[in-house]
Amino acid sequence: MDEFSFIRSIQPRYYRQPSLIKGISDDGAVIRPFGEDFVTAVDTMVEGVHFTKETMPPFYIGHRVLAANISDLAAMGSTPVFYMVSITIPHHWREVELKSLYEGMKLLADDYQMDLIGGDTVSGRDLSVTVTVMGTVAKNKARYRSAARPGDILFVTGTLGDSRGGLEWLLHEERPQSEDAAYLVKRHRSPEPRVAFAENLAHLSRMALNDVSDGIANEANEIAEASDVDLEIAADKLPYSDALANCYPDQYEEWLLSGGEDFELLGTIPEEDWPSIQEAADKTGVAVTKIGRVTQKNGDVPCVRLRRNHRVDVLGPSGYTHLKGEDE
Amino acid sequence: MDEFSFIRSIQPRYYRQPSLIKGISDDGAVIRPFGEDFVTAVDTMVEGVHFTKETMPPFYIGHRVLAANISDLAAMGSTPVFYMVSITIPHHWREVELKSLYEGMKLLADDYQMDLIGGDTVSGRDLSVTVTVMGTVAKNKARYRSAARPGDILFVTGTLGDSRGGLEWLLHEERPQSEDAAYLVKRHRSPEPRVAFAENLAHLSRMALNDVSDGIANEANEIAEASDVDLEIAADKLPYSDALANCYPDQYEEWLLSGGEDFELLGTIPEEDWPSIQEAADKTGVAVTKIGRVTQKNGDVPCVRLRRNHRVDVLGPSGYTHLKGEDE
Repeated sequence: MDEFSFIRSIQPRYYRQPSLIKGISDDGAVIRPFGEDFVTAVDTMVEGVHFTKETMPPFYIGHRVLAANISDLAAMGSTPVFYMVSITIPHHWREVELKSLYEGMKLLADDYQMDLIGGDTVSGRDLSVTVTVMGTVAKNKARYRSAARPGDILFVTGTLGDSRGGLEWLLHEERPQSEDAAYLVKRHRSPEPRVAFAENLAHLSRMALNDVSDGIANEANEIAEASDVDLEIAADKLPYSDALANCYPDQYEEWLLSGGEDFELLGTIPEEDWPSIQEAADKTGVAVTKIGRVTQKNGDVPCVRLRRNHRVDVLGPSGYTHLKGEDE
Repeated sequence: MDEFSFIRSIQPRYYRQPSLIKGISDDGAVIRPFGEDFVTAVDTMVEGVHFTKETMPPFYIGHRVLAANISDLAAMGSTPVFYMVSITIPHHWREVELKSLYEGMKLLADDYQMDLIGGDTVSGRDLSVTVTVMGTVAKNKARYRSAARPGDILFVTGTLGDSRGGLEWLLHEERPQSEDAAYLVKRHRSPEPRVAFAENLAHLSRMALNDVSDGIANEANEIAEASDVDLEIAADKLPYSDALANCYPDQYEEWLLSGGEDFELLGTIPEEDWPSIQEAADKTGVAVTKIGRVTQKNGDVPCVRLRRNHRVDVLGPSGYTHLKGEDE
């Protein structure tokens, strides 16, 4: 199969978004927005850096790279509508693998009625996939990291560290033999972006939101910095799955802070909006946990503190904690 | 310099597009369109496949990949407004080279007041740059390949084959010693997308447009197929530079058809609109040449014919000509 036949084989046979005027078949796609704001983001995953074929079969590579992008839209409070895929294909990749990769994206895109509207196909030494996504959001309703205010509740959806646990299992164990391991592997390979949860909170007047791609230590620091506030996290409130604690009893506590790629949402809201958060969580089948508070900035720079065993440490972006007063 | 410092160093200090609500600094950029249509496209260039550092210094790599994307917008009749850059960086690339690459993009973007609104930075074995562009176009004014009609004039801007000649020089000659060679090298390294020319034709009610990225043989076939018509090209009308004919007297004729990456525009318009085309060309300092005609489809499938030395051959997408009636 030559390049053109392959490209034809992955082209959608129809489009679903009414705002699409022209899809794939010209020099660019044409979109007619309906008076809403537009959100866009881009992400690249490279074989050998972000994944290997051993830990991530092609179908899940596709799923995961699109999920990471959709998660960015969810963290903006945006509804996914379009995606474009630029792929670098090495000679040793077989057509059936490529089709499987695109299928992994397509099935996830179908959940959101997203249309594939463009892309590029080039050859190269390593498989690399760059996905550009576009979403809509009501005017002035995009959710920023800078919206946290002192007194706000800090919450997180789902459980943390599962993806890290799944990766560990894939790297060091023969195969997922237990139900727990299978759960962690599933969380690693096919994360579910929290789009519906965020959409259900569109009526809230103020909410800071960030998605957990690099670990909540990092994302919490991003919110603190963007909002110029301090955050305080209670270590014993961090939500984790039984599967993770069962499989990795000695490591999971660290992974709750530093384990990335869970694609959960970390957010802050005024205390009075907590019932709305619980309602959205119930409605969309997502767990949500209060894990801390937003406070006035205590020092010169915004900072995240972790309260654990009657001690309060500064939590750096990488998940490493150190005593206040130490050199940073 | 770590990744974060590098990313900070390439972030714009201000934005120019009034439709931008949120630039780089969150999970995505937020755009508020002004009732126009939006056009988007994506392109990837990989070191060792699309260029080498020997033929393309980093500054020009940046220029060229963005120019290729802007050219897609020009071919849609669209005005460039935003771009995002996802880059894979090998360890052996030095910071000064990376900055130069981004500078090459920035200087071109400045010509169009385009804002850099997002991106991703990852590591990998080969340098790879994926650029996503966005542009605006008045409602229903996007230019499609499918708009050609029998009787139309076929035209092309600028001269053809120069980029191919420039590449040949870079691959096989010591250095550009003559003025002619320097001209070809410049055309290869820093193509100028024909945005202003296409914008100046916004008032025309119908125009097919395609940009010359793979050679006009290919682009003409794309127009013929999308419009379900035949095209006839007069070989002796194909525009070329003196520089190209001087440097490559034996090869240039082939390159006029198959040489890609000139990023000129190939289009068709009703005969009565020819004066408008000439006016737009004069106004924007771009040459424009009538090179043929659109005709009714003669056979079962659309086809491009090349008239040369009293002979008419079928012109395939790769620039190879063969007699009509031969097996295709």
